[in-house]
Amino acid sequence: MSIIKVEHIGIAVDDIAQSDQLFALLLDRQPYKHESVEREGITTSFYDLGSCKIELLESTRQGSAIEKFIEKRGQGMHHLAFEVDDIVEEMERLRSAGFQLLNDTPQPGADNKLICFLHPKSTGGVLVELCQEIKAN
Amino acid sequence: MSIIKVEHIGIAVDDIAQSDQLFALLLDRQPYKHESVEREGITTSFYDLGSCKIELLESTRQGSAIEKFIEKRGQGMHHLAFEVDDIVEEMERLRSAGFQLLNDTPQPGADNKLICFLHPKSTGGVLVELCQEIKAN
Repeated sequence: MSIIKVEHIGIAVDDIAQSDQLFALLLDRQPYKHESVEREGITTSFYDLGSCKIELLESTRQGSAIEKFIEKRGQGMHHLAFEVDDIVEEMERLRSAGFQLLNDTPQPGADNKLICFLHPKSTGGVLVELCQEIKAN
Repeated sequence: MSIIKVEHIGIAVDDIAQSDQLFALLLDRQPYKHESVEREGITTSFYDLGSCKIELLESTRQGSAIEKFIEKRGQGMHHLAFEVDDIVEEMERLRSAGFQLLNDTPQPGADNKLICFLHPKSTGGVLVELCQEIKAN
């Protein structure tokens, strides 16, 4: 199997503390994790909705992708992440099929994942993330 | 339980036949259903990804919400739908919590659902749909 499921939906927010109040009320549950990813210049908050998660993302660095996204489009849905069982194989399948990958090799992401993004120009305007859980050896 | 899970992610597209080719390739599976919703001026295509679906939406009427969305923002993620077990109760919970509902009562939607939208101004820029499966009597 290539794409297993929707792993999470990423939502860009201005202020994660403020948005945590809003989303905890909306989703009627508390976030289960906060995590910063220095390399991406973001801090995140995760909500568990059964098999799928909601990830809030706030920019922590000038010029980060999230800052640029919000400047251009405002707060809102930022990316759609699919869980895959073999990210290298899936990157190869999609590259061969003509999709434009934003990473040559899988990168470490939040929530113990290897990730790769696909350019929205090649995916009907949707920023798609592939992610695979990093297994302990 | 109020919100059970992410039921689907709605993606606005220019041309559903063309996007079906793209998404079938991306998701490595065929859509399981096509359905038009006259009242909304849309035609849809559904992909099953286990517990969560992807819904492509094309406008079939001038001035439809999907046409306006694409004019303003281009193709891409349009709404995020949560399954609820009692939509009337959940609408009341969210209205009382200060969220702005776009429907006073649940409306019939695609895929055998009763639905209600929340205004993105009250949900951090995310157009949220609540949906409840219509059960046969």
